[in-house]
Order: sequence, then structure tokens, then C-alpha cells
Amino acid sequence: MGEQSKPGGRVLREVTAGGRQTWRGGNMLYPVPAVMVSAARAGERPNIITVAWAGTVNSDPPMLSVSIRKERYSHGIISETGEFVVNLVHAPLARACDYCGVRSGRDVDKFGELGLTPVVIEGVDAPAIAQSPLNLACKVTQVIPLGSHDLFLARIVSVSVDERYMDEKGAFHLNDAGLVAYSHGTYFELGKKLGTFGYSVKKRKAGAKRPRKA
Amino acid sequence: MGEQSKPGGRVLREVTAGGRQTWRGGNMLYPVPAVMVSAARAGERPNIITVAWAGTVNSDPPMLSVSIRKERYSHGIISETGEFVVNLVHAPLARACDYCGVRSGRDVDKFGELGLTPVVIEGVDAPAIAQSPLNLACKVTQVIPLGSHDLFLARIVSVSVDERYMDEKGAFHLNDAGLVAYSHGTYFELGKKLGTFGYSVKKRKAGAKRPRKA
Repeated sequence: MGEQSKPGGRVLREVTAGGRQTWRGGNMLYPVPAVMVSAARAGERPNIITVAWAGTVNSDPPMLSVSIRKERYSHGIISETGEFVVNLVHAPLARACDYCGVRSGRDVDKFGELGLTPVVIEGVDAPAIAQSPLNLACKVTQVIPLGSHDLFLARIVSVSVDERYMDEKGAFHLNDAGLVAYSHGTYFELGKKLGTFGYSVKKRKAGAKRPRKA
Repeated sequence: MGEQSKPGGRVLREVTAGGRQTWRGGNMLYPVPAVMVSAARAGERPNIITVAWAGTVNSDPPMLSVSIRKERYSHGIISETGEFVVNLVHAPLARACDYCGVRSGRDVDKFGELGLTPVVIEGVDAPAIAQSPLNLACKVTQVIPLGSHDLFLARIVSVSVDERYMDEKGAFHLNDAGLVAYSHGTYFELGKKLGTFGYSVKKRKAGAKRPRKA
């Protein structure tokens, strides 16, 4: 978190035709999820770290990755235990999510400070955050040092969801939760719905307008 | 893309206390970026594949990852050339982004079909998409087979930005572009701004309300 690139002084080339500017390489892939990662070492209070460098990496088996700076408190815990929980963040958790990205678990009891509840989740000893709409229990399969960060690849061993987003037919409406995305220094709630997967090739009703070219 | 988990039939345990349900592991880390990845083999028409399993993995050096199914057309191109461009997606590109996730470059000339323009970008031979607000030129450093997908780790060697998001002082306002996030089967524009990085610990003005606990 807080690692957005600053354009200042890194212009390589101004391309006036087409109105583009070229910079040196920097981290500008947005929006990304801002998730709260919880972990605990036996006999110590559990901790939460906010991770924006996170993503899904494999469908079958289900796997995700989180990148964590080596000097962060949770880096040691996760390296040692090989377990963590990814807790999705919705608007009511946004402030807590930001807090867990700027304060260290070495100094602060984040669960206590934020009034969050650590709860048991199937498959790992790491605690989940009860207030999150969805928790992913993860077991580390590989750690890849990349420089500033270590990349933790992990199997998702179980998922815990808040039943308030299930309807009476058992369908789960995650997008009713008001999930938060992080983009270039700012947290956003998801906004206007643009379409569902495959909408660009769905058959149009007779008389409907042709899709515009982008 | 299109790889959202379906809860049907995977309930492990219903936890009535606390109102949570536990499922088997699945990919439910959202929202994620839905980016258009462009690549080209010498002498062939360039192609675009939409990737939702993408993210930043390292700050210094700047690196990102994309996960691509082995059977996808672009998998071969990127494996062979070791290069690709990540093109961020804003609302005007959302339909094209969806299209590039459901159609194969084996069958369709996606640039031509969608009216998109391949342009040169510093540092790689892979083409960028001129209509994207921001392009990241990437060189593959490592490929990690994970099962259904291969994880491509890559250095970001240059960034090209649309000058319409720069102000007269040279500051870049990426969040004015209307970026798109993908969450559980649906594309969303970013919506309500919740705060900027560090807002949870900023000093409040006298008389301002205390932050609520989440």
C-alpha cells in the first residue's frame, strides 16, 4: 500500500502525436483489491496487514498470491506458519483496511484497536475477520523473493461467506456487499455496473442498437 | 475471465451462529482489474487477451503478474516472445475488454474487429493499445506452471500514458479515466471515493467527528 508511482522526473519521451507520454517502468496496474490479510503465530495476538499487491493466480486448483515486504511484521508470521486468511473489504471496513496498511502489528493490537473479531475458519489455524463479507483461508505453496517484496503463492482451502449476501435460493450476491477497490492512492466503492461477463457477444433483441466500437 | 466460482453444491458447513457459511476453496478474491493484454509474434497480426487474474507483485523493481491458461492463443505468443503489454481498461473500453475475454485470436483479428490501434511502446516489440488510458510494457522474467494457468512474472520496463489525464502542472490523474474493475462476473466503473491512502490516521480538525470503528 502507499506504493503508487510518482510520475515526477521520470518522463522518458514526450510523444506529441497521439498525445501520450512515456515514463520509466512503475507500478500503475489499477484498480487492485485492497484486502486485509490476517495471520497469527501460536501464543501471540493475531495480526492484520493490508495488501494491495494481491490477486488470483490460478483457477484449478484455486490459488491466489499476496506480495509482502520482508520487513513487515506479518511477513515473519506467514513465512513461519505457512498460513493466512484473505478478508475482502467492503465500505464499512475501508477505514480499518487503510489503518492496517499504515500501522504495524509490532506496535498495535489491530483487532482490539479496530473492534474486529478474530474467528475460526475451516482448514487453517490463522484467524478470519468476522466483519468481512468473505474470507479465503490460504496455505502457502511457494515463496518467491522478487526484491522489495516476497510473493507468497497459496492454495485457497476454504471460503467463509456472510449469509446476509445469500438469497433464499442459495445464490450468493457478493456484489451487494459494496466491495472496495484501490486505485492510484484512493479507495473506491464499486460504482456503475457496465455489463456481465460475455455481454459483448450476447445476441441482441431485434431492433436493439449495435454495440459501439470502443 | 468467466472463472467466477459457483457456490452451488460446495457448502461444507453451515455456521448458524454468526450467520456464515463455509465452502470449499474457490476463487473469490474481488474486485480484480480486468486488463487487456496485447502481444504479437513477428510476421503475425497482433492479438489481445483479457486477463482478470493479474496484479502487481513487486514495487522495486516494478513487476506485475498475469495468469493465462496454457491453451489460450496468447499463451504461446507470450511464452515465445517473452513480452506483452498490459493496457488498463476504462468504461469506453469495457465492451472490447469483455469481447477479448470470450473470443480467440485464432479466429478473429481483435484489433481490426474492435477498431483498436496497435502502437509502438518503449522497451518491447509487443504493441500497445492506443485507446487505453495507460499501457505497461512488460518483459517476462519467470513462468510458473500452477495447474490450469501459467503465472507469468514480468518486469515493467516502461509506461505510456494518455496526456488527457495530465494537468498543467504535470500531475497525472489516473482516477479521472473511469477505470473498470471486475467482480464476481460483473464489470463495474469505480464509484464513490472512500478516502486516500493514510486517511485513517490523518489528524482530524478540532471538532471533527471521530472515525467510526468498522
